[in-house]
Amino acid sequence: MATLLAREDLHTSVSDPASASMNFLNEVSARFPDAVSLAAGRPHDGFHTTDDLDRYLRSYLTHLEGLGLDAEQRQRQLLQYGRTNGHLGALIARMLRLDEGIEVPERAVMVTTGAQEAMVIALRGLCAGPGDVVLAVEPCYVGFTGAARLLGIEVVPVPETADGLDPETVLAVARAVRAGGRRPRALYLVPNFANPSGVSMPVAARRRLLDVAAEADLLLLEDDPYGLFGLDDEPRPTLKALDTDQRVVYLGSFAKSCFPGARIGFLVADQVVMDGQGGRALLAEELSTVKSLLTVNTSPIAQALVGGFLVESGCSLRTAVTGKIRFYRRNLRTLLAALEHSFADEPRVRWNAPDGGFFAVVDVPLTADESLLEISGRDYGVLWTPMSFFHGGDGGRRALRLSCSALEPEQIEEGVRRLARLVRERAEPSDPGLAAAPADRGAPAATTVAG
Amino acid sequence: MATLLAREDLHTSVSDPASASMNFLNEVSARFPDAVSLAAGRPHDGFHTTDDLDRYLRSYLTHLEGLGLDAEQRQRQLLQYGRTNGHLGALIARMLRLDEGIEVPERAVMVTTGAQEAMVIALRGLCAGPGDVVLAVEPCYVGFTGAARLLGIEVVPVPETADGLDPETVLAVARAVRAGGRRPRALYLVPNFANPSGVSMPVAARRRLLDVAAEADLLLLEDDPYGLFGLDDEPRPTLKALDTDQRVVYLGSFAKSCFPGARIGFLVADQVVMDGQGGRALLAEELSTVKSLLTVNTSPIAQALVGGFLVESGCSLRTAVTGKIRFYRRNLRTLLAALEHSFADEPRVRWNAPDGGFFAVVDVPLTADESLLEISGRDYGVLWTPMSFFHGGDGGRRALRLSCSALEPEQIEEGVRRLARLVRERAEPSDPGLAAAPADRGAPAATTVAG
Repeated sequence: MATLLAREDLHTSVSDPASASMNFLNEVSARFPDAVSLAAGRPHDGFHTTDDLDRYLRSYLTHLEGLGLDAEQRQRQLLQYGRTNGHLGALIARMLRLDEGIEVPERAVMVTTGAQEAMVIALRGLCAGPGDVVLAVEPCYVGFTGAARLLGIEVVPVPETADGLDPETVLAVARAVRAGGRRPRALYLVPNFANPSGVSMPVAARRRLLDVAAEADLLLLEDDPYGLFGLDDEPRPTLKALDTDQRVVYLGSFAKSCFPGARIGFLVADQVVMDGQGGRALLAEELSTVKSLLTVNTSPIAQALVGGFLVESGCSLRTAVTGKIRFYRRNLRTLLAALEHSFADEPRVRWNAPDGGFFAVVDVPLTADESLLEISGRDYGVLWTPMSFFHGGDGGRRALRLSCSALEPEQIEEGVRRLARLVRERAEPSDPGLAAAPADRGAPAATTVAG
Repeated sequence: MATLLAREDLHTSVSDPASASMNFLNEVSARFPDAVSLAAGRPHDGFHTTDDLDRYLRSYLTHLEGLGLDAEQRQRQLLQYGRTNGHLGALIARMLRLDEGIEVPERAVMVTTGAQEAMVIALRGLCAGPGDVVLAVEPCYVGFTGAARLLGIEVVPVPETADGLDPETVLAVARAVRAGGRRPRALYLVPNFANPSGVSMPVAARRRLLDVAAEADLLLLEDDPYGLFGLDDEPRPTLKALDTDQRVVYLGSFAKSCFPGARIGFLVADQVVMDGQGGRALLAEELSTVKSLLTVNTSPIAQALVGGFLVESGCSLRTAVTGKIRFYRRNLRTLLAALEHSFADEPRVRWNAPDGGFFAVVDVPLTADESLLEISGRDYGVLWTPMSFFHGGDGGRRALRLSCSALEPEQIEEGVRRLARLVRERAEPSDPGLAAAPADRGAPAATTVAG
């Protein structure tokens, strides 16, 4: 007799609401392939070709030869099982020093199968008991909240402001959690050009957040996939660069700086862990057990590709990705200019003006849900992401995220024109947004810039 | 103030006992680099070189061209984020049909970051509530028990016999679990040349186990990394090949057939899942959410390497790995002959005679623990794995696992000579093993062949 399973008997993460939403988005995208997708947050396709792969491999092999590895050792390093925490620690530590002013020892670095695995590993290692919870910025990257659900870890949201997380709110939430008998172990945030909101934290707030983390005995999980892509060259120190007391676990990705197909990310955890018998290791070393139980080790061949990319750039991504920085700057400026152009005479539409990154948030005078997205794809030829996907509760219902990373400038302009037509035609008088008094417009989903 | 963490505040999987044991083993191996390692279960190094990598990539790109993908689509498939369940489904389904007589649709295949991730995904998806437990053969591969601990899932051991798992014992254990108010969701086993024991299940027992699984409403998690490496060409049908009712989730690995450095494994799950609204998907499709939350998708470049290997062999691994099969057969025969030669006059030493694979188990008249391993490495120049590492309780204390996959035949012979010296010199009269009556010799840790 054929085996039939019921979905309700599978783990809750199988029907994870955020993932279900993302599946819906992918499905809509597949059904309307001619729609302009302001939903896709992936990097642009044009920067690498498969011909680069062999060159990166050879650059890395030459680098290993320079380190004194003989031919047999080089083969083994790429083709065999490898060190659990990977073999790019030294190159990544050097990159962090050059690009970010982050000083960490090589053994504080763990190479992961993308930043997603780094999140899972950090969450699993830090949250030990049923009372251990994690705080996270809201709206939040769905990969993080989903990873927590996968592990049965509760996420306590901390609302984001136009200037990112407010440290005092973080402190208040952490205290309330502790007063409720639970232990807040860490706070997840994206200080630079957040996904989905695009907002960034001012430097003073970053410093204060580090103090708050020490006061509340929290670690900070700093996710920084977009930090290189500011609209200007102003330095934006990462929390990790400001972190003199090892409060920050830094999560890095090569998906945007190099290419996603290698699936290489990393985790930096230089916190000292005491084992009770006088032994001291770094958190990244302690977490290697967790890593080994998830994926054994990250593909050393994939590591070698990124290793070659790093070697060729002298371990400075900022130098290596100047073309990409230029491209994404132009795209974000194009998006913001297109919004200005298309919605100049529409005061009910507001959006934020991120200083960099791939995303902006638009508040619209109508419910931006899945059914509107379907109409938008079918009848207006434009796709976007409902901000409600990034909220645990009811938030973001009248806001949408626009991505500008995967498109060419003229596609962005066309997409925004189509979006403007959707909003004009669909924001009907019966919609409560239309009736909103100006006061209502003072509380957009993200930060404010007049439309 | 520097952040100090206590190890006891980290998740229990960080100090996972099996992983701690494996770390000890690695550490001992590093300290005694000149010892012959009969502990290392990795594949032999000599079958591939890094020069193969570019050829595999090009073979796969040519294959994609044959499928009608233009240059841009081919670049995107390798370099971008990809489909969650991977892009090798069709090639792997074809391979399973040709090599194993397993008939499954392409969409029942999920490509994973090694078989380890496949275990995590299957465990996470199937065990939903606190009463959901998983059964596993004991002694058991530590990656499986560790993955369960990582997810907080209890593992109920089912003792292995000389002929692998006894289906009636499985039934009894499953019933006892259910009678205790818990739900046994699946049983993990390695039917062919198990790690660590080397034993295999007779075909009749495999058929009966499928019936038992239906009776007890269990899925079978069949892990098959060694199935290609039998000592002879006798067909050994996998459970999945015998499975007409979708009782089996099949876990596959390319680490031994291709190379570990790609970190490519897969999961086959063709069970129908009903969503309660009349929707039906296959379990592999349902589990894609879990996969996306762990690693987003498996590196498409790493997939392409294995894809090229498959394409070049016409999707028949059995054809592609004839050289490897010959090599591992010779090594296992060498190991068994060396045991026979070295322990012919030592009736207190017994071992099993696996029909294939990388491992054999030796029962010895002394406690084979970590301290003996250290002495063995330092004073006798030979390393092995204590069987106690693979038991949850007290089992395997006077037995050790020998691996023969990574070595050359003369190293295997030398390693066994050194082991014989250790056993002769260390099996002191004070050791209870020496005093054992012949009756005691009738119950070795694994199956029996007289020494």
